[in-house]
Amino acid sequence: MRYWEDFHVGDLSELGPVTVTEEEIEFASRFDPQPFHVDPQAARESPFGGLIASGWHTAAIYMGMFVRGVLGGTASLGSPGVEELRWTAPVRPGDTLRGRATITDVAPSSTNPNRGTVFSSHEVVNQDGVVVMSFRSRGFFARRP
Amino acid sequence: MRYWEDFHVGDLSELGPVTVTEEEIEFASRFDPQPFHVDPQAARESPFGGLIASGWHTAAIYMGMFVRGVLGGTASLGSPGVEELRWTAPVRPGDTLRGRATITDVAPSSTNPNRGTVFSSHEVVNQDGVVVMSFRSRGFFARRP
Repeated sequence: MRYWEDFHVGDLSELGPVTVTEEEIEFASRFDPQPFHVDPQAARESPFGGLIASGWHTAAIYMGMFVRGVLGGTASLGSPGVEELRWTAPVRPGDTLRGRATITDVAPSSTNPNRGTVFSSHEVVNQDGVVVMSFRSRGFFARRP
Repeated sequence: MRYWEDFHVGDLSELGPVTVTEEEIEFASRFDPQPFHVDPQAARESPFGGLIASGWHTAAIYMGMFVRGVLGGTASLGSPGVEELRWTAPVRPGDTLRGRATITDVAPSSTNPNRGTVFSSHEVVNQDGVVVMSFRSRGFFARRP
């Protein structure tokens, strides 16, 4: 088990890859049924020129990578939030995404001696090296008993 | 069809309700398999005292409400991002969520006469009136032809 003490500023984790399939469009049908996410014809006629993934889908795909690559086996206690979530380029069916998580700061809790906060920055990059999403986040972790 | 010109500062949309079911835990199995999201026993022993939804699941559920209640039938051209996404209280199976979207600003594009930006703030509230998530966002819309 990894605790708050095991995260260090500058730690970099390379995550993925995950390939986005057109079948996964089911995500958008359920959660973000805008025409350019779910209707191939309407998407072709949109400024995007074809289907693109919901930004929330990209975020969820990245979270899967992050849990498998970083949070799994840690004493994670959830996250209070995210700053500056940016969708900087379209994600299309067939794209292969990789993630990059960097620890930017760590701080003990000022109110609870049993936990601390880890600050991190996150990027998702496609097969052409284009950053498609980025954000900063905080996570709470238990301290080593 | 509603265009950029049809959004006005102060417009308030009440969204939902949507009830979160335990079966929907499938979201977390796929995208956020932390123990307190997917393992009832581990969740009971966590500080949350039981299963809670992934924050990204709550965001996706809200987006579904927002598309059905606001974006559907508009000339939406996607979003460049979100500020200050906050998960302020746990969402548990059986919770009934409602959303509230407020238009906070509108601005024509400085580079493209055919589009404009709509700024909005968003809150998700549970059946007890507790805010469980909030964020601010920007959306691009086509201008009326």
